[in-house]
Amino acid sequence: MSTLGIVKRNITRADAAAVEKLGRIGVATIHEAMGRLGLMKPYMRPVYRGARICGTAVTVLLQPGDNWMMHVAAEQIQPGDVVVAACTTENEDGFFGDLLATSFQARGARGLIIDGGVRDVDELERMGFPVFSKAIHAKGTIKATLGSVNVTVVCAGAIVHPGDVVVADVDGVVVVPAAQAQTVADAAEKRESFEGEKRAKLASGVLGLDMYKMREPLAAAGLKYID
Amino acid sequence: MSTLGIVKRNITRADAAAVEKLGRIGVATIHEAMGRLGLMKPYMRPVYRGARICGTAVTVLLQPGDNWMMHVAAEQIQPGDVVVAACTTENEDGFFGDLLATSFQARGARGLIIDGGVRDVDELERMGFPVFSKAIHAKGTIKATLGSVNVTVVCAGAIVHPGDVVVADVDGVVVVPAAQAQTVADAAEKRESFEGEKRAKLASGVLGLDMYKMREPLAAAGLKYID
Amino acid sequence: MSTLGIVKRNITRADAAAVEKLGRIGVATIHEAMGRLGLMKPYMRPVYRGARICGTAVTVLLQPGDNWMMHVAAEQIQPGDVVVAACTTENEDGFFGDLLATSFQARGARGLIIDGGVRDVDELERMGFPVFSKAIHAKGTIKATLGSVNVTVVCAGAIVHPGDVVVADVDGVVVVPAAQAQTVADAAEKRESFEGEKRAKLASGVLGLDMYKMREPLAAAGLKYID
Amino acid sequence: MSTLGIVKRNITRADAAAVEKLGRIGVATIHEAMGRLGLMKPYMRPVYRGARICGTAVTVLLQPGDNWMMHVAAEQIQPGDVVVAACTTENEDGFFGDLLATSFQARGARGLIIDGGVRDVDELERMGFPVFSKAIHAKGTIKATLGSVNVTVVCAGAIVHPGDVVVADVDGVVVVPAAQAQTVADAAEKRESFEGEKRAKLASGVLGLDMYKMREPLAAAGLKYID
Amino acid sequence: MSTLGIVKRNITRADAAAVEKLGRIGVATIHEAMGRLGLMKPYMRPVYRGARICGTAVTVLLQPGDNWMMHVAAEQIQPGDVVVAACTTENEDGFFGDLLATSFQARGARGLIIDGGVRDVDELERMGFPVFSKAIHAKGTIKATLGSVNVTVVCAGAIVHPGDVVVADVDGVVVVPAAQAQTVADAAEKRESFEGEKRAKLASGVLGLDMYKMREPLAAAGLKYID
Amino acid sequence: MSTLGIVKRNITRADAAAVEKLGRIGVATIHEAMGRLGLMKPYMRPVYRGARICGTAVTVLLQPGDNWMMHVAAEQIQPGDVVVAACTTENEDGFFGDLLATSFQARGARGLIIDGGVRDVDELERMGFPVFSKAIHAKGTIKATLGSVNVTVVCAGAIVHPGDVVVADVDGVVVVPAAQAQTVADAAEKRESFEGEKRAKLASGVLGLDMYKMREPLAAAGLKYID
Repeated sequence: MSTLGIVKRNITRADAAAVEKLGRIGVATIHEAMGRLGLMKPYMRPVYRGARICGTAVTVLLQPGDNWMMHVAAEQIQPGDVVVAACTTENEDGFFGDLLATSFQARGARGLIIDGGVRDVDELERMGFPVFSKAIHAKGTIKATLGSVNVTVVCAGAIVHPGDVVVADVDGVVVVPAAQAQTVADAAEKRESFEGEKRAKLASGVLGLDMYKMREPLAAAGLKYID
Repeated sequence: MSTLGIVKRNITRADAAAVEKLGRIGVATIHEAMGRLGLMKPYMRPVYRGARICGTAVTVLLQPGDNWMMHVAAEQIQPGDVVVAACTTENEDGFFGDLLATSFQARGARGLIIDGGVRDVDELERMGFPVFSKAIHAKGTIKATLGSVNVTVVCAGAIVHPGDVVVADVDGVVVVPAAQAQTVADAAEKRESFEGEKRAKLASGVLGLDMYKMREPLAAAGLKYID
Repeated sequence: MSTLGIVKRNITRADAAAVEKLGRIGVATIHEAMGRLGLMKPYMRPVYRGARICGTAVTVLLQPGDNWMMHVAAEQIQPGDVVVAACTTENEDGFFGDLLATSFQARGARGLIIDGGVRDVDELERMGFPVFSKAIHAKGTIKATLGSVNVTVVCAGAIVHPGDVVVADVDGVVVVPAAQAQTVADAAEKRESFEGEKRAKLASGVLGLDMYKMREPLAAAGLKYID
Repeated sequence: MSTLGIVKRNITRADAAAVEKLGRIGVATIHEAMGRLGLMKPYMRPVYRGARICGTAVTVLLQPGDNWMMHVAAEQIQPGDVVVAACTTENEDGFFGDLLATSFQARGARGLIIDGGVRDVDELERMGFPVFSKAIHAKGTIKATLGSVNVTVVCAGAIVHPGDVVVADVDGVVVVPAAQAQTVADAAEKRESFEGEKRAKLASGVLGLDMYKMREPLAAAGLKYID
Repeated sequence: MSTLGIVKRNITRADAAAVEKLGRIGVATIHEAMGRLGLMKPYMRPVYRGARICGTAVTVLLQPGDNWMMHVAAEQIQPGDVVVAACTTENEDGFFGDLLATSFQARGARGLIIDGGVRDVDELERMGFPVFSKAIHAKGTIKATLGSVNVTVVCAGAIVHPGDVVVADVDGVVVVPAAQAQTVADAAEKRESFEGEKRAKLASGVLGLDMYKMREPLAAAGLKYID
Repeated sequence: MSTLGIVKRNITRADAAAVEKLGRIGVATIHEAMGRLGLMKPYMRPVYRGARICGTAVTVLLQPGDNWMMHVAAEQIQPGDVVVAACTTENEDGFFGDLLATSFQARGARGLIIDGGVRDVDELERMGFPVFSKAIHAKGTIKATLGSVNVTVVCAGAIVHPGDVVVADVDGVVVVPAAQAQTVADAAEKRESFEGEKRAKLASGVLGLDMYKMREPLAAAGLKYID
């Protein structure tokens, strides 16, 4: 009945080409292309400036104060994966540091998304191992209780299935279901191509009011100009 | 009865020379010169390192999850203005991104102060468009509900009238009522000129206890030294 | 009965050699060597990038909105000290700025740890005076009420006695009781020496599961692999 | 330049009949009749179950950890007033207890709205002196610094002018500008009279979808029913 | 690609007998019987004392500041359902009040779980319509944007599928997947039956140390008794 | 070096007569008599209305998500004790429920103060076992990691030594060091005896301004009355 104590070995990862395409697009644009869904809560922040991640999710469900399952997860990582770690309760302990990062990086992981804390942040930056987390906290953890690997988790308010695409940049973290990766990547790319033209118009002084034809609906909604 | 659905076109902006003078002074000093009033709450932070703003306020009252009034505000911007956006409720959605920034910048805006979220932060930094906000959030907004432009708003705990001077740096955001701009600028400048002398004394090892003649009042208040 | 209104002049500082040794080790490692105790809460963050502190504590107990005791503390600073400021209640006012920093620096202080707010952050960075705080806030304070200097305080959840070693880096702030400084420094150094070998193994692709011999206890705890 | 250190004695209170009428209407309804403006933030809660207040505002601007101005405010209270206390910074100290409540009650005050903490809550309930606050905190305050009485304040995000009507019940706290008291009271009363009929329809099983004729606009917006 | 703008009419509700059985068991016990999974975050609290809910979920995905979909959801309610409302972003507006409660109650709903705010709390208590929410807030909402009804949502950190059993009492809110309802109900009932015996032993003075045979593993873990 | 894994059996409890006297006095008054020190943070709240505790502290240091040490603590309880539980990190799991309460009550404990979560709140109320906590949370915990019993802890920001007096009522939680119990009890009782006279004066309409002779210092501080 429980999803604790389980490691799923075979997961279906999103299409690699779609992942690469998503990796070249910003999180805000992908989120728009998703119909404004799939974002994690904004408390998830990069632990160092310039961190950026795109890859397929290996999920981990942690227990508070315990990072045992991180080691179990390491074995399930394939090149191009991102580890996404949720916790059964709110906890900001430092579940992850430079040794685990070394191991994850050796397995080919592109980064970590964790609804908890991490440490050794200077070393992570030197290694070029990007992490988005809820907190930075030197507090260590134990290895005593089972969670799970590659089960569906809720991380910072978003549902993540193993194999989903996870993209993170300075604007936040977005999850794209594996089955939608190609469609979302195409839609997001199309959105981007439209933006250049809009940007040029706005830069020339054209108002959004006119470019988007907002004056009439604003008046209809009752907007009044006074002096 | 309501101040929703209103755009005030003619506002009285603070004196330009006073604004320029305030732009050369730190927020902490201006706040002291104001009698320690006018500060926004400390959760307002620059979205990129080194951001700094000084200008006259064009105010916007937003609805949660809706940035329609940002486009209405764009038309009211004059060179030297800062857009100050409040919301009718607490909401951290990404009300503002690079397209709006392009439009605001084209109109001459010097930056944005927003009691909510923004996105496209990397692009904002590349553009040199400074923003101070409550959050960074990729979450997009709709354009469906009326707020107002150039009404008095409460932004991050501070009252802002259209035309007031708003100064933001790494220490926070301070609002100087338009009518007091010149007086505050003069008082702040005077405070700064005193600081050099004090700094030199303290750097030479003189104690504040002696420089400010605190020993007597401390003793009177009952301070006891023990070994 | 109260510890308000008291300045203790003679305090026993931790052994200087132990302090220097601790200054070369990361906070996370020291905290491990302490048996995972002594950390402040993770809301304590450096006010500028790269800040790092290690020294002996001169403690201050502040009243909300009042920094009078900071001036009293300045006189108690000896070269190599770190000022650790707690408050009798939660308060994020800007208790500290560049003038006090100049005075503290002239006395030989290595930095400030404060469970409250500070200001003049750009100037602090220029001066190279590192600060870890709960907030950055331009709000000034008064000088009207007595607190204490060099009494035991609780700062961000950690007990700090005058003379204890305080180490702060990007991962957080840890307090080492003066009497344990040498032992902790030795234990922490030993931990570090073990890490290089582990890191090399993990970098070569060896799994923590094998290196730490976790497979058997995981199975005993009931971990199940499925496909 | 500052509004600190000022006591305004003559204020224009809202019309007494309008105040009484507003006192019989719920906060949610008044807020609707105001065009959805004027609410304080939802962290303002009654300190005991069943507390409810309606009266005209005597405003106080406090300094953190200091309740001196509460005593100054007491003298300005007239029967039917509500004291509305803001603070120059975020602070949850216990600014108010049973002795001040006794004094306020003797002057005819109907209650207290405070963006800070209070104490002696059991005694406040026994006295029947309602308070809405941000916190309950036994921490006492000093009497050392000037704030102001009867200046415009921002309390929990809402602007309050002396003399405005303040209404508080379990749903929150709303501020009605004195000049609008009669109009808002009338509009709110009218809203209430409509609610009985709507409630009866909904209770009989009629859906809001039909009663408010929402089916067509929902379809136009693209709502799709699937099985 | 999006799950916005969708209403699913046919959902598979958990077995009615299992729901009734779960309704007689406490949330903490059910959560244990689930393997310690399925809980919402602890900020979800009853809006009045004594509120308790058990029923099958009709889910709603709301937009910030907009309760249009609540009316759409009303039509999908069947007797015994509980409405579970999530939001696409963090927002504490008052999405729900006594009129909607009247409508929901007329359709047979047993209560509301909402990751947002509600109002008319006194009236909700008088009606006996239990609500668990993140906030109480008088702030009203508009009806302008589409969300969805009966899609999978994340509410206060927990995944809820339409038809799942939701149980709420003073200890929190737990979600039982529809397919596991009977198994969990049986397991929870069994847990309860064991508790009486344990309680009697503990009440007689037997220690948990002995009843659970903890002395040996504690010693093995290194616990030391000192005098 | 560590204080983890230790149980101290012999502790010096505060004088029983002093404890009884403190039990008849409110927390706010005791805190005043302490010189405004010793309070826990205001997020500590009673889990049911009317809860009140006074007794001598048996302290527990917990690990996140683990309540093993609660069982160890039970054995150290003597009649008249209050268990005070801190945690090595921030964690709101439900560390305590009705079974542990039954055991604690059988040992003579008067209640629990916990910087974490508890559950079975309805049952705790029925049993008359008062608890003050940071959260109510159904989330269960494991029994796997050592903490300590009867070491000095920091609980909700206050230092608590084993044997100290802890008093909790609706206004908060205060800690009185064992050695000061009699002195504080006497001072607090004296304060209370003065309050009756003051209350009578204030109730008769005398202003605090006059009773406390504040008019002169207010004028000296620069207070100005305007019309």
